[in-house]
Amino acid sequence: MSGIKVTGEKRLVLISGRAHPALAEQIAEELGSELVPTDSRTFANGEIYARFDESVRGSDAFVIQSHTAPINEWLMEQLIMVDALKRASAKRITVVAPFYPYARQDKKGRGREPISARLVADLFKAAGADRIMSVDLHAAQIQGFFDGPVDHLFAMPVLLKHMREKLEQSTLTVVSPDMGRVRVADIWSDKLGAPLAIIHKRRDPLVPNQVSVHEIVGEVEGRVCLIVDDLIDTGRTIVKAAEALKAAGAIGVVVAATHAVFSDPAVELLQSEAIDSVVVTDTLPVPPEKRFEKLTILPIAPLLAQAIHAVFDDGSVTSMFDGAA
Amino acid sequence: MSGIKVTGEKRLVLISGRAHPALAEQIAEELGSELVPTDSRTFANGEIYARFDESVRGSDAFVIQSHTAPINEWLMEQLIMVDALKRASAKRITVVAPFYPYARQDKKGRGREPISARLVADLFKAAGADRIMSVDLHAAQIQGFFDGPVDHLFAMPVLLKHMREKLEQSTLTVVSPDMGRVRVADIWSDKLGAPLAIIHKRRDPLVPNQVSVHEIVGEVEGRVCLIVDDLIDTGRTIVKAAEALKAAGAIGVVVAATHAVFSDPAVELLQSEAIDSVVVTDTLPVPPEKRFEKLTILPIAPLLAQAIHAVFDDGSVTSMFDGAA
Amino acid sequence: MSGIKVTGEKRLVLISGRAHPALAEQIAEELGSELVPTDSRTFANGEIYARFDESVRGSDAFVIQSHTAPINEWLMEQLIMVDALKRASAKRITVVAPFYPYARQDKKGRGREPISARLVADLFKAAGADRIMSVDLHAAQIQGFFDGPVDHLFAMPVLLKHMREKLEQSTLTVVSPDMGRVRVADIWSDKLGAPLAIIHKRRDPLVPNQVSVHEIVGEVEGRVCLIVDDLIDTGRTIVKAAEALKAAGAIGVVVAATHAVFSDPAVELLQSEAIDSVVVTDTLPVPPEKRFEKLTILPIAPLLAQAIHAVFDDGSVTSMFDGAA
Amino acid sequence: MSGIKVTGEKRLVLISGRAHPALAEQIAEELGSELVPTDSRTFANGEIYARFDESVRGSDAFVIQSHTAPINEWLMEQLIMVDALKRASAKRITVVAPFYPYARQDKKGRGREPISARLVADLFKAAGADRIMSVDLHAAQIQGFFDGPVDHLFAMPVLLKHMREKLEQSTLTVVSPDMGRVRVADIWSDKLGAPLAIIHKRRDPLVPNQVSVHEIVGEVEGRVCLIVDDLIDTGRTIVKAAEALKAAGAIGVVVAATHAVFSDPAVELLQSEAIDSVVVTDTLPVPPEKRFEKLTILPIAPLLAQAIHAVFDDGSVTSMFDGAA
Amino acid sequence: MSGIKVTGEKRLVLISGRAHPALAEQIAEELGSELVPTDSRTFANGEIYARFDESVRGSDAFVIQSHTAPINEWLMEQLIMVDALKRASAKRITVVAPFYPYARQDKKGRGREPISARLVADLFKAAGADRIMSVDLHAAQIQGFFDGPVDHLFAMPVLLKHMREKLEQSTLTVVSPDMGRVRVADIWSDKLGAPLAIIHKRRDPLVPNQVSVHEIVGEVEGRVCLIVDDLIDTGRTIVKAAEALKAAGAIGVVVAATHAVFSDPAVELLQSEAIDSVVVTDTLPVPPEKRFEKLTILPIAPLLAQAIHAVFDDGSVTSMFDGAA
Amino acid sequence: MSGIKVTGEKRLVLISGRAHPALAEQIAEELGSELVPTDSRTFANGEIYARFDESVRGSDAFVIQSHTAPINEWLMEQLIMVDALKRASAKRITVVAPFYPYARQDKKGRGREPISARLVADLFKAAGADRIMSVDLHAAQIQGFFDGPVDHLFAMPVLLKHMREKLEQSTLTVVSPDMGRVRVADIWSDKLGAPLAIIHKRRDPLVPNQVSVHEIVGEVEGRVCLIVDDLIDTGRTIVKAAEALKAAGAIGVVVAATHAVFSDPAVELLQSEAIDSVVVTDTLPVPPEKRFEKLTILPIAPLLAQAIHAVFDDGSVTSMFDGAA
Repeated sequence: MSGIKVTGEKRLVLISGRAHPALAEQIAEELGSELVPTDSRTFANGEIYARFDESVRGSDAFVIQSHTAPINEWLMEQLIMVDALKRASAKRITVVAPFYPYARQDKKGRGREPISARLVADLFKAAGADRIMSVDLHAAQIQGFFDGPVDHLFAMPVLLKHMREKLEQSTLTVVSPDMGRVRVADIWSDKLGAPLAIIHKRRDPLVPNQVSVHEIVGEVEGRVCLIVDDLIDTGRTIVKAAEALKAAGAIGVVVAATHAVFSDPAVELLQSEAIDSVVVTDTLPVPPEKRFEKLTILPIAPLLAQAIHAVFDDGSVTSMFDGAA
Repeated sequence: MSGIKVTGEKRLVLISGRAHPALAEQIAEELGSELVPTDSRTFANGEIYARFDESVRGSDAFVIQSHTAPINEWLMEQLIMVDALKRASAKRITVVAPFYPYARQDKKGRGREPISARLVADLFKAAGADRIMSVDLHAAQIQGFFDGPVDHLFAMPVLLKHMREKLEQSTLTVVSPDMGRVRVADIWSDKLGAPLAIIHKRRDPLVPNQVSVHEIVGEVEGRVCLIVDDLIDTGRTIVKAAEALKAAGAIGVVVAATHAVFSDPAVELLQSEAIDSVVVTDTLPVPPEKRFEKLTILPIAPLLAQAIHAVFDDGSVTSMFDGAA
Repeated sequence: MSGIKVTGEKRLVLISGRAHPALAEQIAEELGSELVPTDSRTFANGEIYARFDESVRGSDAFVIQSHTAPINEWLMEQLIMVDALKRASAKRITVVAPFYPYARQDKKGRGREPISARLVADLFKAAGADRIMSVDLHAAQIQGFFDGPVDHLFAMPVLLKHMREKLEQSTLTVVSPDMGRVRVADIWSDKLGAPLAIIHKRRDPLVPNQVSVHEIVGEVEGRVCLIVDDLIDTGRTIVKAAEALKAAGAIGVVVAATHAVFSDPAVELLQSEAIDSVVVTDTLPVPPEKRFEKLTILPIAPLLAQAIHAVFDDGSVTSMFDGAA
Repeated sequence: MSGIKVTGEKRLVLISGRAHPALAEQIAEELGSELVPTDSRTFANGEIYARFDESVRGSDAFVIQSHTAPINEWLMEQLIMVDALKRASAKRITVVAPFYPYARQDKKGRGREPISARLVADLFKAAGADRIMSVDLHAAQIQGFFDGPVDHLFAMPVLLKHMREKLEQSTLTVVSPDMGRVRVADIWSDKLGAPLAIIHKRRDPLVPNQVSVHEIVGEVEGRVCLIVDDLIDTGRTIVKAAEALKAAGAIGVVVAATHAVFSDPAVELLQSEAIDSVVVTDTLPVPPEKRFEKLTILPIAPLLAQAIHAVFDDGSVTSMFDGAA
Repeated sequence: MSGIKVTGEKRLVLISGRAHPALAEQIAEELGSELVPTDSRTFANGEIYARFDESVRGSDAFVIQSHTAPINEWLMEQLIMVDALKRASAKRITVVAPFYPYARQDKKGRGREPISARLVADLFKAAGADRIMSVDLHAAQIQGFFDGPVDHLFAMPVLLKHMREKLEQSTLTVVSPDMGRVRVADIWSDKLGAPLAIIHKRRDPLVPNQVSVHEIVGEVEGRVCLIVDDLIDTGRTIVKAAEALKAAGAIGVVVAATHAVFSDPAVELLQSEAIDSVVVTDTLPVPPEKRFEKLTILPIAPLLAQAIHAVFDDGSVTSMFDGAA
Repeated sequence: MSGIKVTGEKRLVLISGRAHPALAEQIAEELGSELVPTDSRTFANGEIYARFDESVRGSDAFVIQSHTAPINEWLMEQLIMVDALKRASAKRITVVAPFYPYARQDKKGRGREPISARLVADLFKAAGADRIMSVDLHAAQIQGFFDGPVDHLFAMPVLLKHMREKLEQSTLTVVSPDMGRVRVADIWSDKLGAPLAIIHKRRDPLVPNQVSVHEIVGEVEGRVCLIVDDLIDTGRTIVKAAEALKAAGAIGVVVAATHAVFSDPAVELLQSEAIDSVVVTDTLPVPPEKRFEKLTILPIAPLLAQAIHAVFDDGSVTSMFDGAA
């Protein structure tokens, strides 16, 4: 038979946007590899340019970007990198977005709204992404927005390990700060063998980020309350919840969240006396000026590195969470 | 300029699958129109055939199907009808699926699961659907599964009107039977100005439909409890919730749900003494043998007819729910 | 150059729907492998669920389903499995449909009909199938309905080998029961060196499955007639053909077909005195109650296993039929 | 409500390639319209250029091309015209291909063959065609190759009317020259109330256009034989059939076909003494040097014009054939 | 025939992003219409939200955005608006991008670069845009990046009219500041009947925006030089060209460009003594702090309004430029 | 874990159309391989047929075609081959088109024109091509027309090497024959350290290939002029440029171009006294009757072979041009 035959090889390459280079470097280190040297710049008029300094032809490429503010810049940078990879003949392109951008715009709450989380999935697809990897999606349904595999990782094992070491479980109550987070709180309650309480409040759909706390459903008096959420944005919901819990007799309030969005005035609010400590991961960068005494940041790189390796090696990502989720 | 010019016209046509013809006929009647005569059959080996008896060329076609058991038959029939419409040059094809099939498979709860609700959206798209109309999606994010407009209608105005007429609001408590439904119960609580309670239970992920009730979060003693849910399948969750509520001192339990799936043994269970009445809509057909004394079925056809007319007429579907949702 | 390099591997996995597990098991056995353990279920309301119990990441997956009644259930199960494979990162997904569903709806015979065979190809594509493998398509053009490779296998070598052993070729006449099958009968006539006869009848396009035999074109008196067809559905056409042949002086009537659809009342009809024996393959399951004395079922698994292996190994499927078709 | 509202209009425009301008002009005349003036040229290196001399924005455009030799030139010209229409904002683009190009390459007869008829459908789609209109497809399944509406017209009413006027039906036998055409001959036999005969021959798959006639199945002695086919290419099959019929005692042989491909040496062969007359339509141009005394060419423009008008006007194309096919 | 028939209507709606509202308002005014009231906001973490305050169902929507810095914000806002329109059932969506974003990244100059201008076209498509309207694309080939109609407008008539009024043509020489712009300068030279000169310089591909002027090709001594370009970014190229021209004896230097990108330090540089006046259009907003005495800004809204009206009304956009380009 | 595992292999196969078999054979020879034996034919009515004589399943296939006249034939042949490869399960298909067909139709110069170069990219995609390889695209933006990797090779190293050997650089001036080619001439000028001159002419947009030379911009007196272009079509532009250069005192005129289109009357014109020698590559075949004394043809096969090998081997194509382009 005519032609030339050789044994196939596969090559993993790691590429990083400019939003959170420390995270990408830690992932590379965990994997015993290095990031592909990349020339990534923003021109004077705001247009972004990216070019890889070595061949990525035939590679299994992972493009790591952290969608912190300015979020649209970093999203666009990642899309441009995916386009460049596609045109440079990468074999498979995985978008690694530890914090999925626009995850909260996941449905039409009212007529004539966009579903921006689906749009983002479509943009990744249009640019050439074959697969997405993300941590703790705001709604698990977002997996269904992408027409291809989505590796959905959970930070819970990381956070849970920390909490088990730091907190006495017998006096603990898990608290959902919000109706929409009850399901996650329920899992925590199950894992920790702790009772559940819920903050019953309403958001005014016309005024974002404004919360009116109504009542606490469940017992919290004399308890250490662990408020769990997927993200902390401005911190308003969390702080009002903490204040309500303390007012209702809670003896401690600990906050655990995966994504430290920390929009203003989060840092100020989270230092409230009502909150005793805040634990997050570094899916998003937390710059020095946003760090404060009560804050603990757990590294997410080991989890991402393990998942990237499993994907590259055709191993099971699911089994990473067998004991935990 | 060469060519032939005429004034444009548009024509609405209504087509019905065989799952729930009464509903389609009521919609047609509400609209002052008639269903397109259709030859729809199942051959001896189970293959379905459908053909329209009059031209649908250039029409704005609405294909109404109710996804009751055998759900895959009716889904396939609707897909075949959409294909036939596409090939027969219908101008725009709207799938009317009052109860969206496979809505509960909306995410990967565990590795290697399908996201069948997204698959269904893709199948409709592949067959040629331009748009979907549905009532009370199990998760609002399903709107984002379809690459095109989804008209998401709410049965709440229909159910709410009924409840306001039948129930004394001062003694009422709205109950979510489940962590996943808390958000909907919250809206009901808001609309009725009634307090909220939640049934805190766990499902065993390995055993479908089995529920272990744990505790009631909130006050229900001496209250009439209105359990709200989007659908009633086997009824197990609802009945266990009702029993728990009665055990906790509730003086009445009323159940309101949009979709009467009523899989066995729902009809038997719902006649439990713990439940005082059940109110549903007819998005799914309820055959005579599944009707029982405490059951009230509210017609959904007026809502669907109004929405179809708004879509055809380029009016606002959103504004239909301005006062209510 | 940065990155991690390893030698590529490929892994074949076999997955089976629930329609005809014996066939899938025989294929696995032929290949010296095992089926992927799968949790496949139908919920109370008719929705199907499927999940693989071990990782399929990076695999070359073959999803075997036999499209017997209830055909839409099995089609939907296969689509759901394909979706689950896609989302679980299978590298390539081959739909193995030994009997292609809806193959007879391959064109618009009249206006406003669907082309359901094309729809089925589109549904497989939408779910994520990369390739289709099938046996004896009702029309070879169906290969062109799928946008990708279709491995079209022929059962003729299997059937031919059997016939050559059982029948005396000198007295044999090959008979096409139908105008649409003449081409296939022609090939048989060529392979067996036997003359050809044709049953000239008309179908009433408005009444499915009703046949009015007219005349036999060709000589059959004193001959053993071998009626060949791709499938036997209700058996009406075949039996009427057999009766006409016997009435015209045929001394024996043998029926050979690939697909034993056997819709009612096939089993009853095929036991007619006009028919001496019926030979089929097991592309479709033939349950015990549909088996009868004159029926011979030849195993199709060896052919499918050989083709699957050739596909996996980048060998030639075509060359499997070099001596035969 | 903001915005500008006007009554919608629709405009039909007719565009013609350079293969068979007379046909396009006759269609325009039948419709009481004119062709869009078009600058269509072939550059010195063989590249084709096309530009419309007036606006086609918002129009319902029909691009008429006749796929005669050099067939690839005319196909490419039509694709370029469709691209130009798409970019010039035509609202809907219908490819009118009276003789569908590459229709005979509709399946993989052997491994590693293309399915060029599907490819052609894909090329039309890629260029921007919304719909195809064609006459007497070689295989009706080709309708399923295009992802959109295909208006499949039949020349039979045109040919049948002529035959009924010219031939005495009592002595007529309809003859299929080929196993693949039996189905069409069957319909003719039904329409004319005449018996059927079949020429049973084999083609050598390795040598195109070579035919070895074997035998006539059916009675033809003393009969006028009407050989029906969808197309006449080199005429070899037809002439050998005619000779066989005359040798078997036929008293007349008339040939009816829709598409006069007339590749060399068709014109010479068709003037054989065995053939008494040949009737075709002008779906393909028949230049003066290919016309001969026994040849009758029936105009196809009225049929196409009627169908184009029905499509533009959202009327029924199917009903055009109610009495005939 | 069943169904409901009404006369079709079409409705133009204008939507504006927040980048350059004055331009959108002028367009609306020119059209005698109003912008659709829109709630468009940026959340604290940088995510953008947009919702239309009135129904856009069935409309012919034009989404106007001006891609000034921060360009990725405004691009994302426009994509989100297109998504919202698609899901709100707009009938046709036209992206109006007077300055096409990323137009200069229109090819791979070196390996592993993105083609961001194509990516942008793909993103618009993925979001749901049917058509693009833009002014003076950096390369006309960008039209071919979008799979659909692109209305490419020319600002030349606007600029030319101004120049003819202000400049004495007999002493004028048209100058291309750059090898890449020679073609445009050639057209100007032709329109004004003026000779042509070219600045022959080299860019260092590794250092953006740095220019090394070499020589002037053509005669400029004693001439008024009109430097023409599609855009002015940092102004470096233009100023160096102007200085070279003055050094070579030019008695005046006038700069004409369509797009006033004006990245730093453009405003400072353009006030160089070598330049006598600068004329641009307002495809991009020029805030007060970027305006200077020698600068003239011509309004582009009339041109855009005329083109939008032609598109809506199915008129010819091409004919707008018949006398000019 | 179930399934069968083997080490992956990859296999390069080379396939050639019939336009320029010598080029394909040279490429194969350079690679130490052979062309896949292919049965490629044109039927009597102009339809093309192609079939590969050995399995290509799983292969990395390169389909080499040279788009000389009759260009549409060869384009269609290549599309048919790509379709056959796709259906024969080739793993990756690269279209090798050394001279990209329709490259000059890369934009809408006027309204209602096609963008045929984009159409060609879409046709390749529709047929199943994964990647394109081409040499010296008429406009580099054409890379952006294809949704996938385009390997854009440059013949400049080949031509430059030849010129450096043959020409004395100190007396050399590089000449662009045309405004559109200035950018390429600029690079040559840079590489050779020679000054630049430009022929300033106008084309009448309504009359193709007619040129009216105006003036020479730059100094050419006493210089040897090297006219550089990407292609030579009819040669009219080149010859008029050469004559103008000689008239302006040039002492020699050498022409270098990549693609020898050589449409009539190129061969006659290029033998003009004004031209001293012509150097081209064999991306297009130059038949004996088109060869003349002053013509030198440089082989392009080594460049293509090197690039094909780099693509197959996941090496860098970019680095091939590091020293040169």
